[in-house]
Amino acid sequence: MVASFDPKFDLLLERVVDATPEQLWAGWTQADKLKEWYCPRPWRTVEAVIDLQPGGRFYTVMQSPEGDKFPGEGCFLELTPNRKIVFTSNLSSGYRPNEIPPEGFGMTVQIEFIPEGSKTRYRAIAMHATEEARKKHEQMGFQEGWGAALNQLIELCSK
Amino acid sequence: MVASFDPKFDLLLERVVDATPEQLWAGWTQADKLKEWYCPRPWRTVEAVIDLQPGGRFYTVMQSPEGDKFPGEGCFLELTPNRKIVFTSNLSSGYRPNEIPPEGFGMTVQIEFIPEGSKTRYRAIAMHATEEARKKHEQMGFQEGWGAALNQLIELCSK
Repeated sequence: MVASFDPKFDLLLERVVDATPEQLWAGWTQADKLKEWYCPRPWRTVEAVIDLQPGGRFYTVMQSPEGDKFPGEGCFLELTPNRKIVFTSNLSSGYRPNEIPPEGFGMTVQIEFIPEGSKTRYRAIAMHATEEARKKHEQMGFQEGWGAALNQLIELCSK
Repeated sequence: MVASFDPKFDLLLERVVDATPEQLWAGWTQADKLKEWYCPRPWRTVEAVIDLQPGGRFYTVMQSPEGDKFPGEGCFLELTPNRKIVFTSNLSSGYRPNEIPPEGFGMTVQIEFIPEGSKTRYRAIAMHATEEARKKHEQMGFQEGWGAALNQLIELCSK
């Protein structure tokens, strides 16, 4: 049971895209594919570990154009093949709590792939603990960043 | 998939108790029963909300002998009837991240009821993000507190 979207705490990217739910699911759940699109260029995802089960590890390392690496631990919570992915950065592998630095924030992410004719409604929700965390994430460029990554995912699906 | 016990980060209370898994499960999962034992006396659990599904809310309010109230939000992660309960205080209802105050710590808890003849091996593991959080919880009296609450649960089961 995933919380409903709450504009006070959450951010939403929703778009009808020219790819099938199966292609989008593959892009999200296969590590070699995820690395191709997950980070808006010129940043890159240089490592990805995906253990596709509730409690399973979701680990990525993002690399800046200068070569600095930013590892991130997360944990899958709910998975419905070709339809829904829920994960959180508040927990790591096996549901163990994750350390969130005081200047950062944790989030739970729900991705949905809803068939719409030959296209797919892509809905990505980032849920936060507080209004402040939501605003911070918004100001970091959530719409632009997640939108650019989605463009890369669609490009990958069309290959 | 729940992380294995790691003595660096986790605390364990394990005891063979004179109650059935079914009785212990009922004590944990029925709000009116939980309120009877969850807090070592003279503290009391004055409110409890249990939405028994992954992502479901686990809310309690503890009250000190002086009448101060301490609400706590949590979220169920995995449930195996009469055998296993996993929940976390790092997330609240519907997997939304929980705000953890800087002086506090979040934890994920796994409770297991393992049949052993006419008795039950009760295993409670509290998982933390860091060694510091584990030590803090230990020094707050994890063994004494969780042990006293378990005594109250067994007492309730025998009624």
